[in-house]
Amino acid sequence: MVSYSKIGIDVVTEYIEGLAETYPGLQYLDGFPEVKVVLRADVSSDTYDKVAIISGGGSGHEPAQAGFVGEGMLTAAICGEVFASPQVDSILAGIRAVTGPKGCLLIVTNYTGDRLNFGLAAEQAKSEGYKVETVIVGDDCALPPSHGVAGRRGLAGTILVHKVAGAAAAAGLSLDEVAAEAKRASEMVGTMGVALSVCTLPGQVTSDRLGPGKMELGLGIHGEPGAVVADLQPVEVVVSHVLKQILSPETNYVPITRGNRVVLMVNGLGATPVMELMIAAGKAVPQLQLEHGLAVDRVYTGSFMTSLDMSGFSISIMKADEAILHRLDAATKAPFWPAGVDGNRPPAKIPIPLPLNHLTKSDESMGRPLQLSEQGQILELAIEAAANAIIDLRDILNEWDSKVGDGDCGSTMDRGATAILEDMKKYKCAFDLKHSLEPGLMFLKLRLLQSRLTAGDDPITAFILSSEAALAGAESTRHMQAQAGRSTYVSTEILASVPDPGAMAAASWYRAAALAIKNKVEPS
Amino acid sequence: MVSYSKIGIDVVTEYIEGLAETYPGLQYLDGFPEVKVVLRADVSSDTYDKVAIISGGGSGHEPAQAGFVGEGMLTAAICGEVFASPQVDSILAGIRAVTGPKGCLLIVTNYTGDRLNFGLAAEQAKSEGYKVETVIVGDDCALPPSHGVAGRRGLAGTILVHKVAGAAAAAGLSLDEVAAEAKRASEMVGTMGVALSVCTLPGQVTSDRLGPGKMELGLGIHGEPGAVVADLQPVEVVVSHVLKQILSPETNYVPITRGNRVVLMVNGLGATPVMELMIAAGKAVPQLQLEHGLAVDRVYTGSFMTSLDMSGFSISIMKADEAILHRLDAATKAPFWPAGVDGNRPPAKIPIPLPLNHLTKSDESMGRPLQLSEQGQILELAIEAAANAIIDLRDILNEWDSKVGDGDCGSTMDRGATAILEDMKKYKCAFDLKHSLEPGLMFLKLRLLQSRLTAGDDPITAFILSSEAALAGAESTRHMQAQAGRSTYVSTEILASVPDPGAMAAASWYRAAALAIKNKVEPS
Repeated sequence: MVSYSKIGIDVVTEYIEGLAETYPGLQYLDGFPEVKVVLRADVSSDTYDKVAIISGGGSGHEPAQAGFVGEGMLTAAICGEVFASPQVDSILAGIRAVTGPKGCLLIVTNYTGDRLNFGLAAEQAKSEGYKVETVIVGDDCALPPSHGVAGRRGLAGTILVHKVAGAAAAAGLSLDEVAAEAKRASEMVGTMGVALSVCTLPGQVTSDRLGPGKMELGLGIHGEPGAVVADLQPVEVVVSHVLKQILSPETNYVPITRGNRVVLMVNGLGATPVMELMIAAGKAVPQLQLEHGLAVDRVYTGSFMTSLDMSGFSISIMKADEAILHRLDAATKAPFWPAGVDGNRPPAKIPIPLPLNHLTKSDESMGRPLQLSEQGQILELAIEAAANAIIDLRDILNEWDSKVGDGDCGSTMDRGATAILEDMKKYKCAFDLKHSLEPGLMFLKLRLLQSRLTAGDDPITAFILSSEAALAGAESTRHMQAQAGRSTYVSTEILASVPDPGAMAAASWYRAAALAIKNKVEPS
Repeated sequence: MVSYSKIGIDVVTEYIEGLAETYPGLQYLDGFPEVKVVLRADVSSDTYDKVAIISGGGSGHEPAQAGFVGEGMLTAAICGEVFASPQVDSILAGIRAVTGPKGCLLIVTNYTGDRLNFGLAAEQAKSEGYKVETVIVGDDCALPPSHGVAGRRGLAGTILVHKVAGAAAAAGLSLDEVAAEAKRASEMVGTMGVALSVCTLPGQVTSDRLGPGKMELGLGIHGEPGAVVADLQPVEVVVSHVLKQILSPETNYVPITRGNRVVLMVNGLGATPVMELMIAAGKAVPQLQLEHGLAVDRVYTGSFMTSLDMSGFSISIMKADEAILHRLDAATKAPFWPAGVDGNRPPAKIPIPLPLNHLTKSDESMGRPLQLSEQGQILELAIEAAANAIIDLRDILNEWDSKVGDGDCGSTMDRGATAILEDMKKYKCAFDLKHSLEPGLMFLKLRLLQSRLTAGDDPITAFILSSEAALAGAESTRHMQAQAGRSTYVSTEILASVPDPGAMAAASWYRAAALAIKNKVEPS
């Protein structure tokens, strides 16, 4: 995917500028381009009486880490270039800017470069008299244990460690105590990712490593290949695989067993819409409860630690107890920590309320009688023919609509028509169209037809004639200027190339209904 | 872009299930698939003593509208299928579920289907005895005025109207007062969008309407074509165009003039990473201040009203006064309203702190003397040759690294080497490499070389020999198992196909430096 930001080069410094414009509680050190440090605007090392919590790493994982700076979470975040560890001097500047007499905890993701640079900065800061502790987070569960000396990568579970550490620091604990809580949290969490596209590095062409219809399991967040490439599967299957891998008793990566309480994080990788993340969360919760026998106390769904514009998600599971939940639920001003996740969990579903009075219940008298009248049988035939005409037009309607609207006219009509046919089979109720048709115009027209027939006019001729007029009218929409609906936003040239799909659909079913009735009543 | 959720069909109901799993403050009516209503878990129509705020529309715009349900914002959201207005019965069920004696305000985006269905539901609800008011939002500034009877589309500015109305209702105002505030807010806001890719409708193939290197200005959020297709431009140019269009005195869409106060919303369209949205926000604020003479009181940056997986953003500008800011800043429990946007705005940049003591200042004695010693000159030559060797290797290093790492080894090395050459020109300081090199190993190796030369050994021969050994060693990395770094996550077969790019880079500059020194000291 081409992306506008890639035209510029200084994506990280420009990101930080925008972050500070958006959140007045965040500041940055005046050291661009080398020093890229985001810190709490209300903290100064001279006066800060809490343990400072500092994290950082390569950029390209936004909102991590700078978006989690705020009271109750990180005190400062050190940003490297995209996918490159921050420089030692930049880390040192961050430590000096926020660390008071209680010292600082560095939370470092387990990558060789981050460990090296944060380690060098920590040594230097100690030599300057600062109290410094470091906790390394490696929550990746995708790879088998004991793979090189590098150990497991740090992924989105790091955000949960930040929250625990930040809340412990805000509560006034000592550096040793805060570090111990962060270390314990890091040992409780496991993460695994699934990618559907590879990220685009700024200024480079998108890799075509992952073809259409494929997904990558156990990916990294820097464009490095995943552990396995597999065919795309329904989301519940993917989620099931990921949960089993994280909770595998063979690797024993997280100390979670049946009957435990957990929190769940569903993390978008950058280009994944909220809708898809919520769907994954909705699949993961019942699986954790029913298949793994776990109580799910909290669910965090959103894009927390991304990989530029990668499409996909990761799942993190952390073992929870009262102490950890207390830290996760504590208030924070970090802008990207999700709000509203804690609290009592009422039933998700509640009954549909009844109307205040029963004046509107008259529709109920419209259920299909056991035996249809002759007119009823004719109407049923007409409706069937109309529905089938609509279903046949699906593709061409979609094509027309893609030029003048949003391309789903045929699909929408097909859905309505199919529902009508199913309703007629299932409930044998020709009149109860209200719930299956797209509401509004189509329903009103069918009512009109019904009243004409009931009135006893010579309906057949009028019907056939009017259906021909309707078709001609629909065709003539090519030359009309749209007055309402989405077509008003489309140029006249495009509009002239196709008839209005909705008008054509309506005219076509009207015509089909007319012919069906004519054949029934006056077979030729 | 292929997306896993498209394998399932019931994306909207599954989204709502995931939303309720994530946020215990949200519930939904038990009426799937027809009735898709998300509502506050703490509100019941029997006892609710505030004006209920209800919105809704087609799905595919998540988190809008359901993600904005919560105390202080929406009381209920009615979800249609993707890009289709919700059914009248579904809207009615939502009204009945949350509307108490003070009545309800319907906030409706200006689309033909939404106006029709919300209008029918409002009439029905009134006939049942409910107090109902409706405010239509049409904030689109992309099209010229008086375009059909449809009027301007409702876009992301709607979210700001929700916030104003929700805060007014929470403050205990009457239905008329809340409706008046919402209407006024809707008249104060203008929006325009820019797309870099077209969205993918569930179950359909992605449209190729927009080619690479193109962007679409003034797009809709349902896949309908934009007003203009143009070549991709740097983000500040795009932002400038959009701001001018929204604030155009010709269309006069928003009553904003020089000297006014405004709030800014930069809204992602679904697949746009936070980094890119922040960059756009960082460009928009100074332009509004300097070019348009406006005071920017608040900046809301994030994905609020999307278009499935569309890549791009929209910008909304709302005229602000104390009354509107008071509503926008009021507390809310709606999960997707951004936190931390209000508050005092300190300077964004603060100075880099100095170290606590001056023990570390010894590096300062390493500035380049006016006249370099002979050894210094030789070292300068060696460094230049090494840097140039690295720059020449850029592409092949990137290629190797794309197989075993993240594909940026050559670019990173090139950046470091270029910075060294520039530093040498600019500061004439051969020793101050600390700030320009990627920190760590490379720096330590150069120090080693320096100390060898200073020690007065016969350096040339040792240097040449060791550089040959280094190259041979780097080549042999093909056969090594990685023990650290990202290559530990890559399969052995891939690793065997290329040498380690970092090792090859180090050996190559070492070799180039050795040859340069040999040529200077012992020209052949």
